[in-house]
Amino acid sequence: MRIDLHTHIVPPGWEDFAARYGGGKWPRLEPRDACRATIMTGEQFFRDIDDRSWSPERRIEDMDRLGIDRQVLSPPPVMFCYWAEPKAAQAFARMQNEYVAGVAARHPTRFTAMATVPLQEPGLAMEELRYCREALGIGAVEIGTCPGGRDFDDPELFPFFAACRDLGMAVFVHPATPLVGQERLTKYYFPLIVGNPLETALAISTLIFGGVLDRLPDLRIAFAHGGGAFPFTLARLNHGWHARPEGPAAIPKEPREYARRIYVDSLTLSPRNLRFIVDELGADRVMIGSDYPFDMGDPDPVASLDAARLDPAARSLIEGHTAARFLRLEGA
Amino acid sequence: MRIDLHTHIVPPGWEDFAARYGGGKWPRLEPRDACRATIMTGEQFFRDIDDRSWSPERRIEDMDRLGIDRQVLSPPPVMFCYWAEPKAAQAFARMQNEYVAGVAARHPTRFTAMATVPLQEPGLAMEELRYCREALGIGAVEIGTCPGGRDFDDPELFPFFAACRDLGMAVFVHPATPLVGQERLTKYYFPLIVGNPLETALAISTLIFGGVLDRLPDLRIAFAHGGGAFPFTLARLNHGWHARPEGPAAIPKEPREYARRIYVDSLTLSPRNLRFIVDELGADRVMIGSDYPFDMGDPDPVASLDAARLDPAARSLIEGHTAARFLRLEGA
Repeated sequence: MRIDLHTHIVPPGWEDFAARYGGGKWPRLEPRDACRATIMTGEQFFRDIDDRSWSPERRIEDMDRLGIDRQVLSPPPVMFCYWAEPKAAQAFARMQNEYVAGVAARHPTRFTAMATVPLQEPGLAMEELRYCREALGIGAVEIGTCPGGRDFDDPELFPFFAACRDLGMAVFVHPATPLVGQERLTKYYFPLIVGNPLETALAISTLIFGGVLDRLPDLRIAFAHGGGAFPFTLARLNHGWHARPEGPAAIPKEPREYARRIYVDSLTLSPRNLRFIVDELGADRVMIGSDYPFDMGDPDPVASLDAARLDPAARSLIEGHTAARFLRLEGA
Repeated sequence: MRIDLHTHIVPPGWEDFAARYGGGKWPRLEPRDACRATIMTGEQFFRDIDDRSWSPERRIEDMDRLGIDRQVLSPPPVMFCYWAEPKAAQAFARMQNEYVAGVAARHPTRFTAMATVPLQEPGLAMEELRYCREALGIGAVEIGTCPGGRDFDDPELFPFFAACRDLGMAVFVHPATPLVGQERLTKYYFPLIVGNPLETALAISTLIFGGVLDRLPDLRIAFAHGGGAFPFTLARLNHGWHARPEGPAAIPKEPREYARRIYVDSLTLSPRNLRFIVDELGADRVMIGSDYPFDMGDPDPVASLDAARLDPAARSLIEGHTAARFLRLEGA
């Protein structure tokens, strides 16, 4: 059973949120033909997509071809809309949550839904989280790094993480704007190729030093892109905790202890990087992630496992057992 | 012959630059006793240091104990003063350059000097660079990332890099403020333990995508802390260059080609990280680096080579041959 934790989906269409709620940056889908469309943010071009982004049937064809049994479906970060008025963002999230719950309900053996929540206002986010869990039967939520400008050590966010733990919701963290150092990431597609891994490293570091994993040891939380640059910066974090007073003042155990509590996907785009994260975090913390269907993704994540020449036990965990445990799919 | 590329030194004292040039942030040394002092930036505490930071004799004792034949001496980044009026910064650099050249001249078999230059004004920096090369006989220069707020792809910096190449000066890049995302690095000693590796990753990425290494293939340039997070983000950079048009529009070859042209030190604080950078960049690109005498450094860099269980050929390169080639010490 192969489970791909990191794939993105959008509804095939939705109402005009700018017209209803105001605000110039709402994503909208501009169809090109039956199979192609453009995501616009207001009047700005954002990205061309095709029917792989909204057609479950088209996705299942690719999954069968690539040997993927189940995809976990989450919004691309442009759909988070943490910049928007919170109630409007909740409506935008609700529209997506109902759609993705429906896709998973129609294909229960092939898809698992992830919710999105208006995390710029943690109280509303917790309300939406509970709705997704109790009314829609969704068991996981995707969130962005630094939602509404709050880093993960912000006390305002802690009740949300606690609610995820209490409701048994797995959390999947995807880097999102504002990216660390965004003002210096203006060229060369740097937001996606440099900003994302650095942002993720900062987010995990802040989660750990903010004591969230210390206070919530049973929170299930995963990070995209193999944890970005984090696994490679862990040694320095750990050294700093031992060498300096600031670390022990914040958290009672060394960072490496908490690092072993997070999950990451396999989307490292390199056999050497993949082996590194498996050695550093453990195969019981790594799950397939492809970023399907986008161009910064891995077009064949199973072939990437082959290329990393993992031992059979690690391979089996990464293919599906780790994700089944992370998502509590064991009975599925 | 073991060469430690990354060690810091300050003069045992210097005139009051605030009194002479104005500006409140000039570093000054406040003695505690014969062996201890505090670096202040204006009236702000910066760091306690001891005589290892200024006494060549004390350093040689440690080098003999640790099995290091030669230290390369560079300023700690607080001494760059890229924030200052350029002519005053040049005077501050000159004071340091004359000191470090003197230390190296008195101990020619044990120390190699690195210059510092007022890189907030590239023209003045080139003037100081030439003075260091021609009058002081210095063959290497340390610079900070993002000097004066300019990233390494800034056209204003290119003549400086070209001058380093033309004068045969090796360049050692150390992360320095303003660090990427500095406004989010306010706690937990994060500037040094998170900011430094992320800043270095951005600096190398910008150097590569800015075409500097394409235009100056024979520039010798090294980065502290094993290149920070860069070696682990290279796979994603490389994928992006192939997947998207922005990369090939900037540089004609894939980033991996240029990554093989940089040098890094061994200061990764983990045998697994050290093996990773050796596998990724090549042992002919890695040199011992300890950050002596500071607490984020490696207290025994030779033991760290032991722990990484490198093959003898790689080990021999990292111990000294790579640095001898980088610094053009072959005849020394």
